[in-house]
Amino acid sequence: MWNTLPSEIRQACRDGTLDTPTPGLAPGYVQANLVVLPQSYAYDFLLFCQLNPKPCPLLDVTDRGNPEPKRIAPNADIRTDLPRYQVFRKGEWVEETKNISAHWQGDLVAFLIGCSFSFEAAMLNAGLTVRHIEEEKNVPMYKTTIATVPSGIFSGPMVVSMRPLPAHQVLQSVEVTRAYYRAHGAPIHIGDPAAIGIHDLACPDYGDAVTIREGEVPVFWACGVTAQTALLQAKTELAITHAPGHMFVSDLMDKDVLLS
Amino acid sequence: MWNTLPSEIRQACRDGTLDTPTPGLAPGYVQANLVVLPQSYAYDFLLFCQLNPKPCPLLDVTDRGNPEPKRIAPNADIRTDLPRYQVFRKGEWVEETKNISAHWQGDLVAFLIGCSFSFEAAMLNAGLTVRHIEEEKNVPMYKTTIATVPSGIFSGPMVVSMRPLPAHQVLQSVEVTRAYYRAHGAPIHIGDPAAIGIHDLACPDYGDAVTIREGEVPVFWACGVTAQTALLQAKTELAITHAPGHMFVSDLMDKDVLLS
Repeated sequence: MWNTLPSEIRQACRDGTLDTPTPGLAPGYVQANLVVLPQSYAYDFLLFCQLNPKPCPLLDVTDRGNPEPKRIAPNADIRTDLPRYQVFRKGEWVEETKNISAHWQGDLVAFLIGCSFSFEAAMLNAGLTVRHIEEEKNVPMYKTTIATVPSGIFSGPMVVSMRPLPAHQVLQSVEVTRAYYRAHGAPIHIGDPAAIGIHDLACPDYGDAVTIREGEVPVFWACGVTAQTALLQAKTELAITHAPGHMFVSDLMDKDVLLS
Repeated sequence: MWNTLPSEIRQACRDGTLDTPTPGLAPGYVQANLVVLPQSYAYDFLLFCQLNPKPCPLLDVTDRGNPEPKRIAPNADIRTDLPRYQVFRKGEWVEETKNISAHWQGDLVAFLIGCSFSFEAAMLNAGLTVRHIEEEKNVPMYKTTIATVPSGIFSGPMVVSMRPLPAHQVLQSVEVTRAYYRAHGAPIHIGDPAAIGIHDLACPDYGDAVTIREGEVPVFWACGVTAQTALLQAKTELAITHAPGHMFVSDLMDKDVLLS
C-alpha cells in the first residue's frame, strides 16, 4: 500500500477492499477528519471551525446534498470513500459502518478538517521523536480545561494530543509544526499537564497512553477530536464522523497545508 | 487623538464627533473592515472568507440581528461606532452615511475582517519603508488575475495592496508580515506586476498611486477590498460596508492577530 495514490485508497474503500486505519497510507498526502451534519446546523458549525482554527482547521466543505469534496478531492464521494464511519443520532451512538449511503439525506453537508498526520511526517523527517509511532499505538488525547469559543449549540473543551519529546527537541518541534497551519500548527501548551487540566497522562480520554522517558517534556497540540466532542455535546438530530484513525485521504499534499 | 482607547474612538463615532479616516487612531489596536449582509447570504459569505483567508481573515461575526461584535469589542454597536459607512442595494451604491441605524433589519449579520494597518505598524517598527504613509496617501490597490475560491454567489478577483520596498528590505518585509496571519500575513506576490495581471502601477483601481524609486521592488499583499468586490458583484439585496479608510476600531491588540 505504501506507494498508492489517494484516488486508489478511496477506490479501495468504495469497493469494500480496504478496511484498516489510514496512517501511513498515501504518504505525502493530507488526510482529513470528517464531520457530516444536516444543513440546519451547518452555519453554526462552520463558524465554530472559524472561531477555533487550531483544533478545527477546515480544508473543505461540501455543497448541500452533494457528497463530493470538490476542492480537495474532485470526484471523490464522502459516503463511500472512507474505510469506516460512526453514526450518531441526538448525540447517541447508532453504529459503526463501512458506508453511509443508507444514512444519506439531501440536506447533508460534510466538513473536512485537517489532522496531525501532516506534521508528524515533518517531525519524523526532521529527526524528532514521535513516540506513539515508535510504539505503534494511537496518539494519546486528553480533554482540557481550555474552552473552545462557542458558536450556537457547539461548544465544549478543547481536546489535545500529546507527544513527549526530549527537552532539546522541544523548540524544534514548535518550529517544524507551526508551519502546518491547517494541520493544527504549533503546540498550544508545553510542559505541566495540570496547567491545562490534565491530571494523569497515563489515562488519556481517547487513544493510547505512551511511554514518557526520564527528562522528556509532554508537548500538547490542538486536536480534531475537539470538533467531535462539540458535535456530540450538541446532540444534533444526525451526525456522522470518520471512525477513529479511519480518515479521508485527500488529493492535497502536505505542502498544501503549510501557512502561506 | 493619538493616545485614545478604542472605546473612546467608538463613542466619538456614536456621538457624531469623529468623522475622519481611522489610520493612526488608537495605535496598537486592531482595526477591521466591515461587511453587513442579510442572514440569507451569511453562510455563503462565511464560507467565502473561510476559503480565502489571506484577503478575508475573519475576526468576528455577529449574531443575527445583534449589532454587538462581542468577541472583539463587547458593548460596541456596529450600527453607530464607525465614522462612515457605505450602503448598497442590489450592487448599486445608495449612500454614504455616518450611521446605519435607519438601514438596520432584524436579519442582518456583520462580518469584521482584519486589515493591513496591524502589519504596517510592525513594518515601521522594524525600520521598513511604508511609502504611502511617508507620502500621506491611501495605499494603492489593484484588481488581479488571481481568482478567489468561489462560494455560492460570491466570487471575483483577488484585490491586492502594493508597497514598494528597496530590494534589501524585501525579505525582511516577508518575515515581519507573515506573523500577522489574521491581518493578511505574508505577501502573495513579489516583483513583476504583469505576472498577476497588473499593467500599470501608476493607475491603481482603488487608493492612490505612490512613488516607486530606482531599485525598488513592488511587493503585493492580499487586501480586504477583495471581500467588497465579491459583495458588489453578487448584487445582494442589501450590503453595508465601512467607507474606505473609516474602519471599525476593535479592542483586540495587534499581538492578538499574530499567528498562534
